Amino acid sequence: MNATPTKQKSPDRTNVAIIGMGTVGAGVAQLLIDHGDRTARHAGKTIWLSKAVVRDLSKPRGIELPEGVLTDSIDDVLNDPEIDVVIQLMGGLSPAREVMLRAMEAGKDIVTANKALLAEHGAELFTRARELGRSIAFEAAVAGGIPIIANISQCLSANQIESLEGILNGTSNFIVSQMDEKGAGYDETVKRAQELGYAEADPAMDVDGTDAAQKLAILSHLAFGATVDWRDIPRQGIDGLDPADLVYARQLGYRIKLLATARLVDGELELSVAPTLVAIGTPMAEVRDAFNAIRVVGDAVGPVFYHGLGAGQMPTASAVVADVIDTAVGRTPITFETLEYFSAERPPRTAQRDVDRLRGRYYLRLRVANDPGTLAAIAGVLSNQSISIASVIQHEPKSKDEASSSDNTVPLVIMTHEASEGAASRATTDIEALPAISGSVVRMPVRA
Amino acid sequence: MNATPTKQKSPDRTNVAIIGMGTVGAGVAQLLIDHGDRTARHAGKTIWLSKAVVRDLSKPRGIELPEGVLTDSIDDVLNDPEIDVVIQLMGGLSPAREVMLRAMEAGKDIVTANKALLAEHGAELFTRARELGRSIAFEAAVAGGIPIIANISQCLSANQIESLEGILNGTSNFIVSQMDEKGAGYDETVKRAQELGYAEADPAMDVDGTDAAQKLAILSHLAFGATVDWRDIPRQGIDGLDPADLVYARQLGYRIKLLATARLVDGELELSVAPTLVAIGTPMAEVRDAFNAIRVVGDAVGPVFYHGLGAGQMPTASAVVADVIDTAVGRTPITFETLEYFSAERPPRTAQRDVDRLRGRYYLRLRVANDPGTLAAIAGVLSNQSISIASVIQHEPKSKDEASSSDNTVPLVIMTHEASEGAASRATTDIEALPAISGSVVRMPVRA
Repeated sequence: MNATPTKQKSPDRTNVAIIGMGTVGAGVAQLLIDHGDRTARHAGKTIWLSKAVVRDLSKPRGIELPEGVLTDSIDDVLNDPEIDVVIQLMGGLSPAREVMLRAMEAGKDIVTANKALLAEHGAELFTRARELGRSIAFEAAVAGGIPIIANISQCLSANQIESLEGILNGTSNFIVSQMDEKGAGYDETVKRAQELGYAEADPAMDVDGTDAAQKLAILSHLAFGATVDWRDIPRQGIDGLDPADLVYARQLGYRIKLLATARLVDGELELSVAPTLVAIGTPMAEVRDAFNAIRVVGDAVGPVFYHGLGAGQMPTASAVVADVIDTAVGRTPITFETLEYFSAERPPRTAQRDVDRLRGRYYLRLRVANDPGTLAAIAGVLSNQSISIASVIQHEPKSKDEASSSDNTVPLVIMTHEASEGAASRATTDIEALPAISGSVVRMPVRA
Repeated sequence: MNATPTKQKSPDRTNVAIIGMGTVGAGVAQLLIDHGDRTARHAGKTIWLSKAVVRDLSKPRGIELPEGVLTDSIDDVLNDPEIDVVIQLMGGLSPAREVMLRAMEAGKDIVTANKALLAEHGAELFTRARELGRSIAFEAAVAGGIPIIANISQCLSANQIESLEGILNGTSNFIVSQMDEKGAGYDETVKRAQELGYAEADPAMDVDGTDAAQKLAILSHLAFGATVDWRDIPRQGIDGLDPADLVYARQLGYRIKLLATARLVDGELELSVAPTLVAIGTPMAEVRDAFNAIRVVGDAVGPVFYHGLGAGQMPTASAVVADVIDTAVGRTPITFETLEYFSAERPPRTAQRDVDRLRGRYYLRLRVANDPGTLAAIAGVLSNQSISIASVIQHEPKSKDEASSSDNTVPLVIMTHEASEGAASRATTDIEALPAISGSVVRMPVRA
């Protein structure tokens, strides 16, 4: 169907170009070429892959492109007035940013999956797009196969979103799920995830919460009109997670998930990314492996829960091609113009709440001296910060090893009632200063 | 904000009218009047409630409408050229159908929540809308707060949908969940659901599978291009569900849910509505109370799971108002024109598969004579139909009552391996004819 790419601009056809033919680019090309009937049915016209720009023409990509499509010159796209939509799939910030700006200046609408670029330069890129009368679609930038951008921007538009929480990083969720199911340690599980292709050679951005924070910043803008620098989101990763915490959590009726949370409280936005205890029996606790999930609560609709693959070639390509169709038929330009994302003329509707004021329940785990006065001392510290204890797990030493361990300590797990982050943080510091405490306190928020 | 309803047609404003001010109508009015800022932000202009048509002006509705809005004359809407969108919330088929046709003839775009009307007269109404250059939006007609129409029509447009299964009737799910959690019987649970407002005085259409079948027919058209009369969908309700089956299912690792299923098999569509054993630990099994859920599998995106409130005033109003915004900004007309739902010129892409050929695993429960040869006889019947047994539960009689029951029978539960519906149906008939069998066989499909 795409065999004779003669150029023509017609209402029956939208010509598109892909810049960056990595895994996702190849998936997008495959959908456009092999399933032209499908995209045509949804777009009411042909979506035609005119060009695919790569750095190295000789590199194999596992997909057969019609002759004349592959090129190593971005100018082949920018100088072609018949190309309407540029699918920007270059990673990183530069030259991705410059290429996107040039493409918009050349009159192209943009579809992109580059979350980091939007998190860093969203305001500049969206402002420039509006100046130029162009649109940017970015469904694939957050949670891959879950169409959360369209759902927040359109489907839930009658609502004031009250909260949004999600498992937004598939690599972290894969690692935590595997540790939980197999009782394995962090390091060996990361290694296994790398072997299976679920984690990069350097998974730092995935496991330290950066990736989830960048996605949360984007979603917070869409859902709450907040302008958030992802660096300002308090974040903790799953790096170094101790399997013991997964076991204690389960005993208490929870699983641990790397949860990104945005909640409206008294008109301000509570934001955080942290390993969080999620109650077993809720859909969020059942999210396994590399899946993502997002729970949105709207004041009219109530809770809506989405679950799907957050990354991978074809789930991401699915989001990209849906955006291409929406752009080609004209829905994206309408949405883009109406919502004025990152507009300087639309001041932020919501400010970020001071971290110390975030409220929630906490899980604390520490090693304490096996002495009668220890629990009283800890309870005293918590009480000083007005934090009540909901439950405690302290077993008798299970093994001789444990009983006769050189430091005579035992693990103690405490679940608190609701407290502020500030109080919990101060209590943690004070507990760590108690002479009966060995090492540092593991602290995680808890969701009902 | 809506206090001085002076009429003017301007690009800054879309005037709308509600016909039918029941529970949902009042919710829609509330969102439009109390949250005009919100709708304006998403629509880029004011959405103005000009008229609300009711049968009885004196009936209290729990909402304060600006003067001049409430009327008992549909002509006030049809004859007002400044009204662009009619929100059609009348129930039933007639005069809802006639009113919708007249409104379109008067130049109005339609937003509706009337699922039964679309299931019965969709082809006529959509064809007429296209002739008149009007659009019909119907997000609220299926699964209330879950935006499944937009998700299938737009967000997943890059996919060939391979299967779709859902809990589409909140009343049934509430009843089954309550029976499961409380171990209560069907009749008393229905009564309780009625008291709590989760079931109508006559819940027949909800509990006998009709409502779910009508929704499945609509979704099947959107997802597979099939033209299905809901009456042709094999369906079984939860009416008369025996709590014993919930207990056996749990022992086998399943919960029972009223599941509506559409699956593409060899290019044909398998459709069914039936109480179904759903594996515990999957998100679908955790759908409780009046929630709805839908799992869509696309060939690119993989599985996407949606969970939310399927009915109720504000979830449904949320869907209606999102449709109003989409219509006012112009997205709905684009989608409506592009997709050509129920178009005579777009012949069905998919035919419905013969019921007998549906394949799956089955749960069978029966009462058998407590004799050594019985299981062999049953196994023989199944074997004759090439059905293999996966597992069997047959306890020794638990109580003296059971052992000394006048007919000397005990319950027997069988899980089969995969078989066709035809074979399972024939086997059931043959088993019921065995002399060792008392009463009829309970049979339900099973989902992994």
